[in-house]
Amino acid sequence: MTLIVALDALGGDIGRIEELSSYLCGLASGFKVGWPNIIRGGVEVVKATKKSCEKALLIADLKLADIGYTMIETVKPLIDYVDGVIAQSFIGVNGALGELKSFLREKANLILVEVMSHPGASEVMDPCLPRLVSVAKKIKPWGIVAPATRPWVIRILRKELGSEVKILAPGVGAQGAEPGSALMHGADYEIVGRYITMSSHPLSRAMKVISKHRAAKEGQS
Amino acid sequence: MTLIVALDALGGDIGRIEELSSYLCGLASGFKVGWPNIIRGGVEVVKATKKSCEKALLIADLKLADIGYTMIETVKPLIDYVDGVIAQSFIGVNGALGELKSFLREKANLILVEVMSHPGASEVMDPCLPRLVSVAKKIKPWGIVAPATRPWVIRILRKELGSEVKILAPGVGAQGAEPGSALMHGADYEIVGRYITMSSHPLSRAMKVISKHRAAKEGQS
Repeated sequence: MTLIVALDALGGDIGRIEELSSYLCGLASGFKVGWPNIIRGGVEVVKATKKSCEKALLIADLKLADIGYTMIETVKPLIDYVDGVIAQSFIGVNGALGELKSFLREKANLILVEVMSHPGASEVMDPCLPRLVSVAKKIKPWGIVAPATRPWVIRILRKELGSEVKILAPGVGAQGAEPGSALMHGADYEIVGRYITMSSHPLSRAMKVISKHRAAKEGQS
Repeated sequence: MTLIVALDALGGDIGRIEELSSYLCGLASGFKVGWPNIIRGGVEVVKATKKSCEKALLIADLKLADIGYTMIETVKPLIDYVDGVIAQSFIGVNGALGELKSFLREKANLILVEVMSHPGASEVMDPCLPRLVSVAKKIKPWGIVAPATRPWVIRILRKELGSEVKILAPGVGAQGAEPGSALMHGADYEIVGRYITMSSHPLSRAMKVISKHRAAKEGQS
């Protein structure tokens, strides 16, 4: 199971989110909800997404980037409904990610953004990669985010952080990377949003992505 | 006018937020609301804060750190009620802050976090400071955030970014910096949260901070 569907483009429309996540339940390993949905639909969006497909991982893509106290106060109302929470490595361990990790413990997995998928990630994140890696080594997160659009970053991170950490790769579809390409370079999951959720045939799009994932995995073994 | 009051510790309690912001209206140049309030009270918290003190700047401290598309979709529901929006410099210009800046234009001021106030900011942000400065030089934001707790960073940023950019300094009070200390090193505003909002006498605390600000400004001139 290799597909995480990003529901960001659904504008907090709980009906559409429930419909789509029940529809894709079984195909998607997980769903990702972020601020564009939560600011419009509140915590209810998160609850409803979890309820419509209990077996899939639900990841709150909050891109948290604040001091520990503020991140913990932000996560508290969601914590009973999510399996993972995304935060930015850039903020560091002391007084930030260290506190968040202790708070999350068995409640939810911590997923750290190492490098993002947009072109601007090469301005600060890429050159600061050794320091971002060192934050991940200290925090030992369940998963990290690395860009499908720049596969060399995925390869470095897999080598630096070992085989246990889950690598989640956004940037597939609307942002330009081919489905399967990040898996070939060592990612565990590809995050696909608008390419599936904005399609008039989301189910067949998701199946197409998964079949490309299978081909990529077979090509590797 | 040099005081921005951070309302983060009020847990989305619209009643308390309205009470406190009308109470401090006239003393505070601005108020800052962030995710801990918005995730509990929704956009209504932001509207209510603006309404209870129209003349103060209202800053949405979202610490945005995502691709342009996602940041814009996050900000849209708030844009009519806020005067400024905070985003993280480390995500870069291309496909991120550049798009956000174009969207905000005359609607609201963009404020970039250069370096934060917690100890972990020395792990990645401090050593990457030249690159964070170069993002701010390209974006030319209305304001930047720099830590009251590490005044040498404020001095560097003022020198690098010139006299026009507003420097907002968090870290005063609960995080350890003395009121007035950031102003002495070149900041325009100090952001004070729990030290005022969790006090049993918020008004006298705010007046105490302001009198220390005055002394700091007089010491400078």
